[in-house]
Amino acid sequence: MNNLSDLLPGKVSIAQEDLTCYGFDASGRAEHPVAVVWAEDVPDVVKVMQFAHENDIAVIPRGAGSGMTGGAVPSRGSIVLSTERMNRILEINREDLTVLVEPGVVNGKLQRELERHGLFYPPDPSSLNFCTIGGNVAENAGGARALKYGVTRDYVMGLEAVLSDGRIITTGVKTAKGVVGYDLTRLLVGSEGTLAMITKIRLKVLPIPEAVITLLALFHEIEPAGQSVQRIISEGIVPRTLEFLDAGTIHAVENYKTIGLPGGTEAMLLIELDGAPSVITRDAERISAICKKIGGEIIMAENEIARMKLWEARRAISPALFHLSPTKINEDIVVPRSKLAEMLGKLKTLSESTGIRIVNFGHAGDGNIHVNLMVNRNNRKEYAKAQELVGEIFRITLELGGTISGEHGIGLTKQNYISMEIHPAELELMKKIKQAFDPKNLLNPGKIFP
Amino acid sequence: MNNLSDLLPGKVSIAQEDLTCYGFDASGRAEHPVAVVWAEDVPDVVKVMQFAHENDIAVIPRGAGSGMTGGAVPSRGSIVLSTERMNRILEINREDLTVLVEPGVVNGKLQRELERHGLFYPPDPSSLNFCTIGGNVAENAGGARALKYGVTRDYVMGLEAVLSDGRIITTGVKTAKGVVGYDLTRLLVGSEGTLAMITKIRLKVLPIPEAVITLLALFHEIEPAGQSVQRIISEGIVPRTLEFLDAGTIHAVENYKTIGLPGGTEAMLLIELDGAPSVITRDAERISAICKKIGGEIIMAENEIARMKLWEARRAISPALFHLSPTKINEDIVVPRSKLAEMLGKLKTLSESTGIRIVNFGHAGDGNIHVNLMVNRNNRKEYAKAQELVGEIFRITLELGGTISGEHGIGLTKQNYISMEIHPAELELMKKIKQAFDPKNLLNPGKIFP
Repeated sequence: MNNLSDLLPGKVSIAQEDLTCYGFDASGRAEHPVAVVWAEDVPDVVKVMQFAHENDIAVIPRGAGSGMTGGAVPSRGSIVLSTERMNRILEINREDLTVLVEPGVVNGKLQRELERHGLFYPPDPSSLNFCTIGGNVAENAGGARALKYGVTRDYVMGLEAVLSDGRIITTGVKTAKGVVGYDLTRLLVGSEGTLAMITKIRLKVLPIPEAVITLLALFHEIEPAGQSVQRIISEGIVPRTLEFLDAGTIHAVENYKTIGLPGGTEAMLLIELDGAPSVITRDAERISAICKKIGGEIIMAENEIARMKLWEARRAISPALFHLSPTKINEDIVVPRSKLAEMLGKLKTLSESTGIRIVNFGHAGDGNIHVNLMVNRNNRKEYAKAQELVGEIFRITLELGGTISGEHGIGLTKQNYISMEIHPAELELMKKIKQAFDPKNLLNPGKIFP
Repeated sequence: MNNLSDLLPGKVSIAQEDLTCYGFDASGRAEHPVAVVWAEDVPDVVKVMQFAHENDIAVIPRGAGSGMTGGAVPSRGSIVLSTERMNRILEINREDLTVLVEPGVVNGKLQRELERHGLFYPPDPSSLNFCTIGGNVAENAGGARALKYGVTRDYVMGLEAVLSDGRIITTGVKTAKGVVGYDLTRLLVGSEGTLAMITKIRLKVLPIPEAVITLLALFHEIEPAGQSVQRIISEGIVPRTLEFLDAGTIHAVENYKTIGLPGGTEAMLLIELDGAPSVITRDAERISAICKKIGGEIIMAENEIARMKLWEARRAISPALFHLSPTKINEDIVVPRSKLAEMLGKLKTLSESTGIRIVNFGHAGDGNIHVNLMVNRNNRKEYAKAQELVGEIFRITLELGGTISGEHGIGLTKQNYISMEIHPAELELMKKIKQAFDPKNLLNPGKIFP
């Protein structure tokens, strides 16, 4: 890697501590790379890709390493290409409602900067305070507000990216519409760093909503919570978030970061509405009436501080569950919204029949359930049983018309299951597309495809 | 084609009148195919593709033939595969807010059927009363409501399609989210029938808006109309449509289908708001105030009949202009919204300097201008000059950060210009994708790529 250090002085490390720190991500998987590079601009990225191309070395694009499926875990002998230093917001265009950012910009930082300009970027993964926009684009990240506002894909207008041979491409448009040639932009979105190294991202943004109301609905059982979700949606109300937490999740969070919920709360909905004050006040009343009728108790966030506290608790779920069970298996299945209650029921039965504790939370409005198998990797027998159980959960999910990943992608951890959802003809097309972009298989090799 | 008739009895024609009728589309280009097939289901499509693949015959997918760029015009020796008989709405799912349709379903028919269920499918190309959803997906059709609601791409959740060798693929999900593998769904959207023959389409739908307000803003000049658009948007108001018509368009429509506008109207905005009554009433008042301050006159549509009359007039623009100038050249450039006034000014200058009459209308809120060069193809000199002018218009569009096609695609008519917008590296990737899907180049050959 000496050559690489000469090419990019001050931007390359082969120190053991860096190889360790950049060797893992939130999936818990790990492997040392041979070097870490912190690119600062597009020419840096081009240099890395050209070097890698000439020397047949794999390159692993990396944002914050907050991905759940191992997308940023290095393959053996690879270079980790970090976007941390490419963290500038290059343009905020209020007139055209677009922003241009580098991939290393942290989602939450962009959100706050936009708010100062009266603008709004909806996608809000729970990791928003550390995950990067580049990572969000690579994984097509979702978030709690997807119910009303969609996911990252819906906001990416165009990209600049570097191909595996060092050539720069630009895709998409700066305009509200555009249909010139195939949609390379959305092909790169969600491609998990396997097709090109993204270097600039143009996002659509919205005017900031006039007002927001946040409320909690608490239930003594899980079933009425599910019924409430269904009734809210079928009445035509579209909250911006409709999150649910089951008993296990609530207790884990209470132990980790107290919200002070009444005892006996076995299921909870975190509901947020945005828009014109008159409309959301009315909708909040309608939601309260629906939940109360089914036996729920309603708590309104009285002010911004109370709101923030609720969201802190919601975003603490993942750390709280890891705290309880450091080697838990975390999935993110989605079922059609109408099948949510059925899926939760099946998960309960599976937990009972296998003896493996399952804790569920997620984006109820989207039918997106984060299924957590609370297992200990050191208990080999239990862990093997849990891995079998994952396959069974995916089988049921697909049977109900769902998908095995709503927002985390395939990465390393789900690649043995991809064929359950994607048939051979489609998988063959995907592999040909990979081959078209990256004939030497240098960009994030070994991900997605089994 | 005898074999084909045996394979698909009653579904194949080689009659001259059919070869003529299915030999052209709204682009004005024409070429006879060797046969027309009306597939009735997926097995029919598979049979056609297998036959074509074995015999190396090109297949031209066709919806209603309402495309503007020649996407449905046959290549010499090809089979036209019409979806007219695949026109069933297969499923309307109120709970999950999705519908499943065959490609030959007419957009307007779907809209009306959904309304009966309290549902709403936003994309509304002006040809909605005859264009098909399959064609809309192939072209990634837009429409007047794209300003608030986006384009066809934003509503396609998943597809079933037949590859050029007859294999069936399914892409996407039935759920609100999904990130498993590359996004083949959005790759097929806008691919103009060159990658696969789409046979089923799952669309996201929305609850029908509570109320709609439609209003006209009339101006004595074009500039204040442009300023009004800018102010409406920059105040954070998001109408669902914000259409503009210049003087030439207004006069053409008035002669063709009288709306009864006051004399001296030289520019017009057709504005529609939807949502909660209290909010849109307030926003309509804000818009009226903005327009009046700049010298506009406001006419509100008093009832549904008046609303329909306004939209009939808007949708009559294309036929009215064709009536005036049957061989006019019609483009659909887009510029960033903030550059709309500048672009219109440049078009005026170009019209004056070349002596070619240019009439403009379009989706002002999106920066999407339908530029009409009112020329006579029989006047060779004029027509050649107009074609040069198109190149110049595209050059300026791109210089302003725009795109050469917002919703019509490339097809045949724009393929000589595609390289102005798409660079060689991106074009090479697109061609490799085409090769991956259709190695024998049988599906709609000769389109998009020069």
